[in-house]
Amino acid sequence: MPDPKHMESAVHEYVAAFSAGSADRVAALFAENATVEDPVGSPIHEGLAAIHAFYSASMATGAKLTLEGPVRVVTDYAVFAFAVHLEWEGGAKRIDVIDSFRFDEAGKVAEMRAFWGPDNMHGFT
Amino acid sequence: MPDPKHMESAVHEYVAAFSAGSADRVAALFAENATVEDPVGSPIHEGLAAIHAFYSASMATGAKLTLEGPVRVVTDYAVFAFAVHLEWEGGAKRIDVIDSFRFDEAGKVAEMRAFWGPDNMHGFT
Repeated sequence: MPDPKHMESAVHEYVAAFSAGSADRVAALFAENATVEDPVGSPIHEGLAAIHAFYSASMATGAKLTLEGPVRVVTDYAVFAFAVHLEWEGGAKRIDVIDSFRFDEAGKVAEMRAFWGPDNMHGFT
Repeated sequence: MPDPKHMESAVHEYVAAFSAGSADRVAALFAENATVEDPVGSPIHEGLAAIHAFYSASMATGAKLTLEGPVRVVTDYAVFAFAVHLEWEGGAKRIDVIDSFRFDEAGKVAEMRAFWGPDNMHGFT
């Protein structure tokens, strides 16, 4: 099982790297054949090339992440609540999200699922 | 797909019913053959009788739940962060948890998973 402190650190690096706009740093947290489902129910991005491209596009909005409360860590999971803040079409928008990271034995994220839906989007109308 | 507002309401009822110490009200939210895994990695409680017994035992501690931030709702999932507060062996304890509820077509919780580990337990030493 991956080390709990390592998993918690990976979440903090994810939030910092995303807010810094570095798709390279974010992708470095994932396993070669990892999957990203963001939001849950949408098509899954599989493999590092697809994941890097997905994050590059997401970061093009200039979005920043704010962690909310402690990272929950159990077995090979780290789960955490956060808000996405972005400026879009002249107004401040916020999306409330909970992400789940499942890690592999090497300490890389093997599966990421992002839980947010229309009711979690604010300022978009 | 179950209605998002129904799923969000079910979470609020869960928090209120748990804090009120009513295993009946909590069990009423679950499907007949539902599964509860709390925490993730522990043996799964399956079916309403097992689930009712599990919650009765959990509530015997007098634990109260405090929801933290908005419920994230997407497809058939409601995911939410909260804290468990309890008095035990003369001191105040807190456990930080994120629960995931997956609902069935009838709007009942079919699968519950609770994400919390040793690093999320405070005041227990």
